[in-house]
Order: sequence, then C-alpha cells, then structure tokens
Amino acid sequence: MPRRVDHDERRRQITDACRRVIARDGLEAATFQAVAAEAGVSVRLVQYYFGHKHGLLVATHRAVIESSAGRFGGDAPGAGPGPEPPPPRAVLRAVLAALLPLDDDRRADAVVLAAFHAAALTNEAVTPEELRGAPRALVDLVAAQLWRERGDGAGPGDRARLDAELVLASAAGLTQGILAGHVTGETALAVVDRLLDHLVDPA
Amino acid sequence: MPRRVDHDERRRQITDACRRVIARDGLEAATFQAVAAEAGVSVRLVQYYFGHKHGLLVATHRAVIESSAGRFGGDAPGAGPGPEPPPPRAVLRAVLAALLPLDDDRRADAVVLAAFHAAALTNEAVTPEELRGAPRALVDLVAAQLWRERGDGAGPGDRARLDAELVLASAAGLTQGILAGHVTGETALAVVDRLLDHLVDPA
Repeated sequence: MPRRVDHDERRRQITDACRRVIARDGLEAATFQAVAAEAGVSVRLVQYYFGHKHGLLVATHRAVIESSAGRFGGDAPGAGPGPEPPPPRAVLRAVLAALLPLDDDRRADAVVLAAFHAAALTNEAVTPEELRGAPRALVDLVAAQLWRERGDGAGPGDRARLDAELVLASAAGLTQGILAGHVTGETALAVVDRLLDHLVDPA
Repeated sequence: MPRRVDHDERRRQITDACRRVIARDGLEAATFQAVAAEAGVSVRLVQYYFGHKHGLLVATHRAVIESSAGRFGGDAPGAGPGPEPPPPRAVLRAVLAALLPLDDDRRADAVVLAAFHAAALTNEAVTPEELRGAPRALVDLVAAQLWRERGDGAGPGDRARLDAELVLASAAGLTQGILAGHVTGETALAVVDRLLDHLVDPA
C-alpha cells in the first residue's frame, strides 16, 4: 500500500496532465485515454483514482482554483511579517493583478476556467453548482479591504459589497478580453488602476 | 432560382437553428446533421449555403452579435425622435442593461458567445480574430457618452477610453456571473448603478 503522500502526488500528476490537455485542446478532449497519455500513466490508474470522467473534471477544476488562490497567498502584500498591514489599495491591486492572465501559467488556468464555464452552461460534464465557492470568498476579501480603507460602519456594508462585486466582475471581464485579444495586459492594468482611483482614492 | 430574400431567410433559418443547438448542447454538438435536423432541412441544403462547418459557425457568431447590437438600436434612449439627446447616464445604463443576460433570449445568446469564446481558445473551430469587431465598436460608443457627460477636451481622451474599457469588462464579468449563478440579475443591475455612480455622478 503506497504512502498517503504518494497518492496525493499521483492525483496531482493526473490533474496537472488534465489541465494541460484542456488548455491545449478543450474540455471535450479530456478523455481518460488522453489524460493518461499526457500524464504518462495507464488508463487503469486514472480510473483507480478518479472513477469517472466527472470526478476527474471536478478535481481538476478544484486544482486550478487552488493554484489561483495560492497566487495571492505568500507573495501578496498582507502576508508579510511586518506589524503594519499594507494599504488596502496595494492589497486590492495585488489581488487583481494576480487574477489576470498576465503570464503563461495564469493564461493556461484562465483558458481552463473558460472551458469549464462554457461546459457547465451547455452539457452535463459539470454543473454550475460544482464550480462555485471561489468567487464568494474573493468578494468577502475585497469587501473587507474596501471597508478597511473607508472605515465606515462596523463592517463592510452594501456599498462595499457592490463595489467588491464590481471589482471581481471587472477582473473576469478583463481576463476574457485578454484571452480573446481585445485588450492587452498593459491596458488591463491601466483599467485596474482607473477602477481603484474610483473606488479607494476619489479625486 | 429562388429570389434573394429567400436565400437570406433560409440562411437565417439555419443560423437560428445552429444558435439553439449550441445554447442547448455546446459548440461541439453543432454538426451539419444536428443543425439540419433542428432547422428541419436537409444536410445537403446546409452544405449548399455554408460549405464547411467553419463557415456555418462564423455566420452564426455574426448573427448573435447582430442580435445583441440590435437590442440597443430602436428601443434604447438616443434613438427617440426628440430634439434633445437623452442624458449620457441613461444611455449608458440602457446599453449595459441590454448587454446583460436578463431574459431567455439574451441568456441563450450569452451562452452561445461563451461557447465561442472557449472554443476560440482551445481548438480550431474558430479563431479569436474571427470573433472580434463588436467590442471595439462598443468601447467607442461608451467613451463618446462619457465624454459627452464630462465635456472635457475635444473628444474622448485616455481616461474616457479606460473608463469605457472598465464598463465593458464589468458587463462581460457580470454576464459570466449571472450565467454561472454567482450573481442575480438584480445584484448585477445594482452593480451597474454603482459603477455609473463612480463614473458619471461622483459624490
């Protein structure tokens, strides 16, 4: 019986392969055969760990979300050892920049998430419910920073929550625009700064 | 030889069927066979009008964009017969509301566009270049309204253009959130109003 860590590594190896297949060829290309070949393991092993295609897809989606969340963990301002928390504007800019597909890894993740989004709307590979969770946590994070900046009331109110929805909708829309080639990464970051001007530093 | 209008109607009948197939089952389901069956015509007729699947998909995408553009034609403020143009804020709100998937038709169109977006990123069914055009025209429209509201300079400057990009990115992100069930239509409209507060009616 392999040790627990080996199981986790093996599952990770397979979901990583599944991410690459989806980023390259789309969700419908992610068959057990294609993913096993990409991972360099047997189809039987993929079946052993994930049972059905649905289990593999849900695990792969979760892995992408965890990577995204990890990006504003260690490196983001706010996680430093200093006693003084960084300014909310710096935290918000770091979160937004981390969400945009500005390098190859984030681009691949964003393509995979767009594929899951489209699939959840039109077939039974995954359901919208299975893809939720992450956006709610982000709305809370952004609303808390906006409230910290403004210091009004006992906690984030309706306006801070609507602004947080606006921040995340903008990030999602800019991501779509970058992937489709409608906007450059440079323009997207300028839009982010403009949004932050409106939200936390009104003239 | 059928009259010209018959050709246009027939092409429309086929692209309408293709839209329904994609909205229901995804882009990969839009085979000539499935679209012909949905339209109630022969596969040969679909081939006669569109040649290859690629031609059918590009024509279908264009039909969806034209429907969307048509929604802020006749009914939108700005098209009225009065001598006085409506306030820019009213125009912007009408454009944004028209872009969001708040009824069945617009939802179906948004699902089809999400399917095209994902497909353009991961396979050769269509290319990102073939899906462009519409967003640029919208950025110009929004920037012009913002400039009209603010009346600064000889035309929309860099700030108005960045704000216009922000408006359209927000609309795209809210659309994604509504389709995925992250936000309700009501919340999305409240976010739109909040954005307009920031852009054209600063406190």
